[in-house]
Amino acid sequence: MGDAHPTIVFYIYLLRKESWWLNTQHSALNILDEKFVGVKLGILGLGTVGTGTVQLLQDAVGRHPLLEEVEIYRVGVRSPDKPRAVELPQSAITTDLAAIVNDPAVDIVVEVMGGLEPARSLILQAIKNGKHVVTANKAAISRFGAEIFNAANEAGVYVMLEAAVGGGIPVIQPLKQALSVNRIHTVIGIVNGTTNYILTRMQTEGSDFSDVLADAQRLGYAEADPTADVDGLDAADKIAILASLGFGGRINLQDVYCEGIRQVSKTDINYAEKLGFVIKLLAIAKYQNKANSQLSVRVHPTFVPKAHPLASINGVYNAILVEGEPIGQVMFFGPGAGAGATASAVTSDILNLVAALKSNSAVPNPLLSCRHEDYCQVTPIAELVTRFYARFLTKDHPGVIGKLGTCFGNHGVSLESVVQTGFQGALAEIVVVTHDVKEGDFRQALDEIRNLEAIDSIASILRVL
Amino acid sequence: MGDAHPTIVFYIYLLRKESWWLNTQHSALNILDEKFVGVKLGILGLGTVGTGTVQLLQDAVGRHPLLEEVEIYRVGVRSPDKPRAVELPQSAITTDLAAIVNDPAVDIVVEVMGGLEPARSLILQAIKNGKHVVTANKAAISRFGAEIFNAANEAGVYVMLEAAVGGGIPVIQPLKQALSVNRIHTVIGIVNGTTNYILTRMQTEGSDFSDVLADAQRLGYAEADPTADVDGLDAADKIAILASLGFGGRINLQDVYCEGIRQVSKTDINYAEKLGFVIKLLAIAKYQNKANSQLSVRVHPTFVPKAHPLASINGVYNAILVEGEPIGQVMFFGPGAGAGATASAVTSDILNLVAALKSNSAVPNPLLSCRHEDYCQVTPIAELVTRFYARFLTKDHPGVIGKLGTCFGNHGVSLESVVQTGFQGALAEIVVVTHDVKEGDFRQALDEIRNLEAIDSIASILRVL
Repeated sequence: MGDAHPTIVFYIYLLRKESWWLNTQHSALNILDEKFVGVKLGILGLGTVGTGTVQLLQDAVGRHPLLEEVEIYRVGVRSPDKPRAVELPQSAITTDLAAIVNDPAVDIVVEVMGGLEPARSLILQAIKNGKHVVTANKAAISRFGAEIFNAANEAGVYVMLEAAVGGGIPVIQPLKQALSVNRIHTVIGIVNGTTNYILTRMQTEGSDFSDVLADAQRLGYAEADPTADVDGLDAADKIAILASLGFGGRINLQDVYCEGIRQVSKTDINYAEKLGFVIKLLAIAKYQNKANSQLSVRVHPTFVPKAHPLASINGVYNAILVEGEPIGQVMFFGPGAGAGATASAVTSDILNLVAALKSNSAVPNPLLSCRHEDYCQVTPIAELVTRFYARFLTKDHPGVIGKLGTCFGNHGVSLESVVQTGFQGALAEIVVVTHDVKEGDFRQALDEIRNLEAIDSIASILRVL
Repeated sequence: MGDAHPTIVFYIYLLRKESWWLNTQHSALNILDEKFVGVKLGILGLGTVGTGTVQLLQDAVGRHPLLEEVEIYRVGVRSPDKPRAVELPQSAITTDLAAIVNDPAVDIVVEVMGGLEPARSLILQAIKNGKHVVTANKAAISRFGAEIFNAANEAGVYVMLEAAVGGGIPVIQPLKQALSVNRIHTVIGIVNGTTNYILTRMQTEGSDFSDVLADAQRLGYAEADPTADVDGLDAADKIAILASLGFGGRINLQDVYCEGIRQVSKTDINYAEKLGFVIKLLAIAKYQNKANSQLSVRVHPTFVPKAHPLASINGVYNAILVEGEPIGQVMFFGPGAGAGATASAVTSDILNLVAALKSNSAVPNPLLSCRHEDYCQVTPIAELVTRFYARFLTKDHPGVIGKLGTCFGNHGVSLESVVQTGFQGALAEIVVVTHDVKEGDFRQALDEIRNLEAIDSIASILRVL
């Protein structure tokens, strides 16, 4: 550049002018500032995660030195007079969240309020105003991801979401960066701490679901309304996000099959144990058919072989297993929730944005932006090919096992084992494990079996990993 | 920028001129090119890792689209006529490695030749020529890291080393980025696949070290000269690198205490099992004394409680556990070696550099560069505070246990248990487990014990996690 000619300099100016990056206010300023002047955060929400993030940022010594350049500029709350675990200047606190996303001085909006609205609208408004966004909001991203990332790409800003899945575990960033050189074929997660805690206690204590749930609610490991957790909805949001990153396409949340753990009984946990399995609520995304890019994306309680890396993930811990070519199998393990862990993830996103702002790129870093616009093809659950475990209660007629076998055979369902395991009162209990079968065929066989005179009920149906 | 004044434009020019980034040839070119023209790699070495990397890059469809902008421009080999698993144009192959690092067209030098020299000189020359470097060379980085990163910071280039530790597991990048918002206090790894394979087989088969080693050599899991692996030297290189990243300072490799697994016997593995432990070769870096930043950095076979996340990492797999505030405990698990896994890590570094080049930053991304220049204070092993397991062979005199207890007591070593476990021929076997003690005190007690007339030998000494 020593011999740069004024014409060339002007050419640089033109290039820069055209680059989307300069559409944002602060970046234009940064280029003109000789010294980087720090980054101003507007934080939406001061609940568990917001408080944890503020605590982390206010206590920056001994952490990455870039954090010292972050200023907690505005914090939006619902009740300004509520006692808080953190001290903030009264001038920083406001109930006017729109004012934060519209404030020209705010560089990064940190959305940690949760919920769908007004979170969605505030995120979109922040993007429209050229601000980068950090969010922990899996519900909003899994539902409005397409809208949000389209807007972000258009505005030339980044939307970061490390905290949306797996609490403190760095998994979003590895999927976007290090692992993306692989052809990912499987992402399987234990991504809901509440259900993993409940299943672990059911397993170790031999307790019933409802008793453990009640105790988990008392101890604060489950919400008063546990629906989102125990019915698998939270895990469905998360696997939609992970699948999107792992497989490089968007996911329609409606395409994610979702089954919770309410129907898992201690009887099934005992049978799993005897057969060499543990029951885990898995969130699974994998190629059902690689040739035509058909993806299976689903959440359900699953028989996991005891030797599998996910079998030993217990309590409130989360783990995400990724399989790809050529890497093989990698797994990320850590705390799936909690103020500190989630604050770590939120702050790591802030750190990445500060670094991006500071390095003052001419074009956006393609590893930080959302790179896909097409939707993944998700196969209906009836097309899934998997092994099944099923437990039947039958009248103690001779020949029941034969009738079951015939019904399964009629629908092409091949069985690995059929065992009469004992009695429940006057009813015989029969446990069936299938080979790999198409779920639709299996369900049709069950419909036929349900009508058999000898069958009292189908006590449980679980998929086997 | 719509109202930018020519003076301001000239100011931008001056700023840009002063920025280190423009010292590198291609960056200056990039700024002038309207369209990004791709990245040229110079690869040094075409062994297992080099071949895996070339295979991955030659088969880019379905991976991150940025990889399609990478050109394998030059590949340096020792024997150009050797049959290869990959096809490359003859013009790309050369035996003149210096010509690659001096070639003005090369953007990134990928050093996958291993060894200390000429790897070190070639890396330094590449840096001097303004090229970014990707290396898988833990030996060179752990020894010459200070020299290499000083040179890189001065030249304004990045040196990336994801493949140097943990094979395909993304751990370097999480430590530099996501986890760096935490105050890390512990990094513990199973970072050598060969020794973990040997210990796992000793444990499951009840075999002796030498038998399993011979078999591992036959199967290709151990080298003909297994020294670097079984004596812990490879793990020492790796924990020096991890500690440096986790604790934000350089590590003198000489300060890393290192003990291998040759002396681990099947007898000790059995005792470990009975006491509720497994024996793993751990590479540990943790604050010995947080107040004065004293770090303990060491490699040794260790009793690991069975419930610990690292206890179930078996075979050739690696895992790295990181503990910090506020995140708590996170663990990264995956294949620690192999062409595919290591190629994934090398290529993820290449991807990051391509993204950095493409985003054309005005200043270096502080998350990609080395940010520390000071050395960590590492405490001598004698200052370590830990629990010990020790096994003694004694003449079957009455009162031996009392004498042992007295010697330990003389040196302030508090015991958790002393058990006479049986006999080996005419000798009684006594197993001692201590509470937390200072290693120096424990060693002094052992010196005294060694001189007791009743003591035949000290069969083994192992630390307890």
